[in-house]
Parts: sequence; C-alpha cells; structure tokens
Amino acid sequence: MSLILTFLGKGGTGRTTIAIAAAKKLSSLGQRVLLVGQDPGPAFGLLLGVATSPDPQEIGANLKVVQLHSTLLLERAWEEVKNLEAQYLRSPTLKNVFGQELGILPGMDTALALNAIREYDKSGHYDVIIYDGSGDQATLRMLGMPEVLSWYIRRFRKVVEDSDVWKSLSPFVQPVTSAVLNVSWTGESFAKEPTQQANTILEQGTAAIADPNRVAAYLVTSGDTAALATAKYLWGSSQQVGLTVGGVLLNQIPATEPLAAEFAPLGISALPKLSSGDEWEPLIDALPDFKQATQVPRPITIDTSTRQVQLFLPSFDKKQVKLTQYGPEVTIEAGDQRRNIVLPPQLRGQSVKGAKFQNNYLTISF
Amino acid sequence: MSLILTFLGKGGTGRTTIAIAAAKKLSSLGQRVLLVGQDPGPAFGLLLGVATSPDPQEIGANLKVVQLHSTLLLERAWEEVKNLEAQYLRSPTLKNVFGQELGILPGMDTALALNAIREYDKSGHYDVIIYDGSGDQATLRMLGMPEVLSWYIRRFRKVVEDSDVWKSLSPFVQPVTSAVLNVSWTGESFAKEPTQQANTILEQGTAAIADPNRVAAYLVTSGDTAALATAKYLWGSSQQVGLTVGGVLLNQIPATEPLAAEFAPLGISALPKLSSGDEWEPLIDALPDFKQATQVPRPITIDTSTRQVQLFLPSFDKKQVKLTQYGPEVTIEAGDQRRNIVLPPQLRGQSVKGAKFQNNYLTISF
Repeated sequence: MSLILTFLGKGGTGRTTIAIAAAKKLSSLGQRVLLVGQDPGPAFGLLLGVATSPDPQEIGANLKVVQLHSTLLLERAWEEVKNLEAQYLRSPTLKNVFGQELGILPGMDTALALNAIREYDKSGHYDVIIYDGSGDQATLRMLGMPEVLSWYIRRFRKVVEDSDVWKSLSPFVQPVTSAVLNVSWTGESFAKEPTQQANTILEQGTAAIADPNRVAAYLVTSGDTAALATAKYLWGSSQQVGLTVGGVLLNQIPATEPLAAEFAPLGISALPKLSSGDEWEPLIDALPDFKQATQVPRPITIDTSTRQVQLFLPSFDKKQVKLTQYGPEVTIEAGDQRRNIVLPPQLRGQSVKGAKFQNNYLTISF
Repeated sequence: MSLILTFLGKGGTGRTTIAIAAAKKLSSLGQRVLLVGQDPGPAFGLLLGVATSPDPQEIGANLKVVQLHSTLLLERAWEEVKNLEAQYLRSPTLKNVFGQELGILPGMDTALALNAIREYDKSGHYDVIIYDGSGDQATLRMLGMPEVLSWYIRRFRKVVEDSDVWKSLSPFVQPVTSAVLNVSWTGESFAKEPTQQANTILEQGTAAIADPNRVAAYLVTSGDTAALATAKYLWGSSQQVGLTVGGVLLNQIPATEPLAAEFAPLGISALPKLSSGDEWEPLIDALPDFKQATQVPRPITIDTSTRQVQLFLPSFDKKQVKLTQYGPEVTIEAGDQRRNIVLPPQLRGQSVKGAKFQNNYLTISF
C-alpha cells in the first residue's frame, strides 16, 4: 500500500514544482516514489526537465514518473470492459467497438486517473504516489467519486427495482439472461453480481481516501489574496469528500503568526523560490514531514455511544453549511460539495434530533 | 444568439482578470454581456470586487455576472429529468429521489455549465457570454462534449440493437412499453424519441462550437516558458474539439517578432499589468477586437469536389498526429484528444486513400 499525496491550490502557485520537490525528497530518503502528472500538456515535462511518457519510467534512484494520457488509459479500460463482457455474455457485442475510436467525455480524465492510481497502488511497487492534478475542485471531485458513486448505485438500484418498467420486464429477464449469459444468477437483480464487484472497489477507495495514512492533501498558496482565499476554501471543501488536509505550504512568503492562526490547527511551512540552475536543495529542505496529516482533525468522526456525528468543516461559516434529510440518508452541503453520510447500523434510518455549528465543527445528534 | 468567448492558458497567467476586462470592455461598447465563472471558490468574486451569486445579477450597465454552483444546477436539471419522466411514464419512479441529495461526480461541473450556457444563450438576453472556466483540457472536454457524446450515442445504439440481450428482450419490450408508457411508439428502438431530442441539442451544440461567429477562444500566456508551451499546446488541442482560437493575449510581456512568428497566423496583443486601485482602463484598451476569430483558419474544412478533408493542427508535429479508420468513421488523435470525423454523404463510408501532414495541416484524401 502506498501513501498518496496531492497538492491543492490556485493555479500558478507552484503546485507542480512542489510536487516534483516532494518526489525528489522522498525518493532520496529511500522511499520508492511514483510522480503522476494529470495534465497532458508540455508544462509537466518542462518543469521536470525530462521527456515524460505515458507509462512509469525511472528518472532517478527510487523515482519514477508518468504523465497520464487519457486516450491510452481509455483504450486499456475498454479492453477490460470487453473482457468482462466476454466473461458474462455468450456472444459479446462490444468487440466491434475499438478502444482507438473512443473520444474523451468530461470527467473521464480524472476517473481514469483515479483508476490508474488505484492500480499503481495495488502493484506494490511504490511507497509513495504523488499526484499532480489540477489541484482544484476537479481533484476533489475525483477523490470524492468512490463515495458519491456508491451512493448513486445504492439509491438508484432501489429506484430501478421499484419502477414499473422493471417490474413489467423482470419476469422476462430471468429466462432471457439464462439464454444469453455464460453464468447463472439467482436472486432478484439482474445486475447484482457485477455491481457487487464494483461496490467492493468503491468501498475500498472510499476507505483509503478517508485514511490519512493512505491519502493526504497539502495546500499550496502564494501571498496573493485570491490564492490565500482559494487555499482556505479548498481546505473546507476537502473535508466534504472525506479527504484529510495535512498542512499548508507557503510559496515564497514568510510563515507569520496571522497566517498560522488563519490555518490553525494545520502546520504552515515557508518555502523558498526554486533557484535557477536546478538548485532543488533549499526547496526540498524546507518541505515538511508529510506524515503530519495523521495528526490533524479527521473530516468525520462518529460516536455511537453519544449518538453524535462530528464533521470538521473549517473555512465555512454557519450559513454556508446546509444539513438536510430528504432521502434515507443525511446530506451535508458546503462548498458546492454534497455529502451523503453513511451511518453505522446503530444510527441508520434515525432522524436528526439536533445540529450545531461551532468552532469549525458541525455536530449532529441522533 | 450570443457570441461565447473563453480564455485558455496555464493557471496563474491572468485568465480571470482578462475575462473580467473583456466583459467590462464589451459592455461599455453597448453589448449586453454575461460573465460566467465556473470555479465555485472565492477567487472569482475577489478579482471582480463583488459578492457573486449563482444566478445572473447586474453589476454595471449591460453587465451581468453569475458564479455557477453545480449543486444548484444539478437540482434544477434533476427537476427537468423528473418532468421528462412524468411525460413518458404512467407511474413515475424518480419522484422519490430529491435533487437536494444528489452528489457531484467528475465531469458534472462542466456538463452542467455547458447546459447553463446553452440556456443563457437561448434566452436572448445576452449579446456576449464570457465563460471563465479552468482554461485547460477540462474546458476543451466541455466544448468537445456535444460532438463526442453524439458519437457515443450513434455508435452504441447500433451495438445495443445488435446485442443478444436486446434481441432476446425486444419482443417483450413493445407490449411492456405500451403498458407503462403514456405515449405509444412505433419502430424498432424503445428509446428513439428521447434520444432524437437529445441528438438535436447535441447537433446544435456541435454546430455552434464549430462557428467562430458563435464560439471562440483566446490564448493567454505570460513570458514563462511553461506558460508559453501550454498556450501553444492548447491552441492545437482546441482544433481537435472543433473550437476556433482567435488570437493570443500576452500578459505583461511585449509582442515581439519571434512570438508573432510562433503563433502565426494568429494576432498577438500585449497586455499591461492591472494597476492597483482598480484602474482597468489601460488593460481594457489593450484588448483586441474579439471578432478576429472569424479571420483565422477553421479547425476543419471538407471539400467534396476534390474529396479532401483538411484539419488545421498547429503546434503538433507529424508523429504526434495519428489517423485511424478502425470503426465506420475516420478518427484523428492528437493532444490527448480523439475526434471522429462526421463526413458528408459523398465521402461517408469511403476508405482513406492518402494523408499528409504539412505546414500545420493534415490533408486526408478519399
């Protein structure tokens, strides 16, 4: 299992440079590091000073780098989909569609990236994976995807099973599936087995992202007002996808008392400018210990004995946080993120008795 | 019909500031302008100097601004989906799922934004819509979506209709649909009518994006090597989604001969720094005429008499451009974008006779 690190912050604050410095630092300490670049453009390779490739290549001791290419990842994913279909269907039909034809739709880049990171993690080849993504809302959507997608599957399977179309068709589905499928299924739902496999992957992903020993983000900011405000906003928004933010990296600004207070209880680290002529040492030396993410408040804590759920929501004020219970679950809305809280059996299906927002924490009582 | 403008370039090159300046300029010339901010964070409002809202609000003569909120847009879109379902199904089932529960998956932000822009355009309230998006690959995926999604629908409808599952189930579908649907359909495909409506919207979108009188992008760059390389890369990648790039805005660097040569035949404009104290005039005065997008090479031209298709693919070299004909259409791959070319009836289904890449143009002969 790898530690997965990523950097969040406004564009132009030096996230990629810092990701490279972190990769150099951790690999020099003997950790096997993979640096993953999301954007397919030339900036990543230029900052790195090497010609990158779409598969991991060694660029130093313990240090590999990969620049993701969505078209290639989609081709490979498509082959897996076709193999899966061939496992289940007697006469596969997807074989006539070629991976080389498939265009990229919005969201595919980060979904494919998350899957690639999952596979790099599973490979056991890396102690640390550093993901250089867009560092904004899109990165949070990516890391929130396992939890959100699980919810959609959970909620809409029930809707489909309750629907008239399904009820009218399902008597025919059982005989039809046994005619066209390689495998025989028992039970209500036609699609139960493949969705169960998907659910396991999604649950493992959700659990990994919620564990700061597995996944952590660090904020990057310059002294610019908009950059500072963006870093704070991303700090709060990260909690909403269950992601722990471990600390703040101040790019070319001093670590002052007011800044420390602004981001407390996170640690702040002042980083120097990368000096020209590839002098990485001063920047590398100023980087913090990335293990500090395990010491900060968790996005969510559930206490079944007091029947309370506590959400850490820094940077938001009371009126920016919305708690609702429309559906079967409790929904928290903040920072243009919506989170449906999966409750333990003791609290599941219970009504909210009270909620209070104080000192960056939303406390919900059941 | 509005002119839709957007700005592409590396993060931190000043795209949002330039988008605001463009909005101020065009509204002062009497055009009714809507400035649309994609990122829900605080930077947009800070740079603009106003508290923004998720619906258009007037901030000056002829000038409205909106900061998109995906959670809200998804709620509204969900209501429309429910209405559509209620039109077709005798007993709707989606009514039990509330828009306020729905989380945001990767890709939804830009898909919802594109739909919002479509509606603002259709409203007739705006002469110009300026979209301040992420300005990178994600913006190109958004603008490429109508064409790519049309392809998926076209290609996979056939796959579904040819599949064993569909062939075995379809005898039951006709009686079942007439039992559960409000409307009666004839013809093979169960889903033909709603997909036809979707296709019309997608085709109109594709046509609008391909027309520089309707949609145009401008590149923004600083003097930084990585920013310049990113701008060039985005210029080429834009062609692959059918988007015309109208010119280059040089943020705080002089317009030199080498730069003009680098981006020829595009015009380059040197922009001054935004002076402190909200002195927008010098920046506004330095902006080019955004109509110049109609004067540059189109991403694609098809000549049925010579049986040739010409693609303008600046910034790529020969080995970065891949032409394949796996499926029923011709596929061009470059810049991590894949484009399936819709050919006119005279060339449809024909084999490629030859292809040559010269002076930024890929010429394909049939």
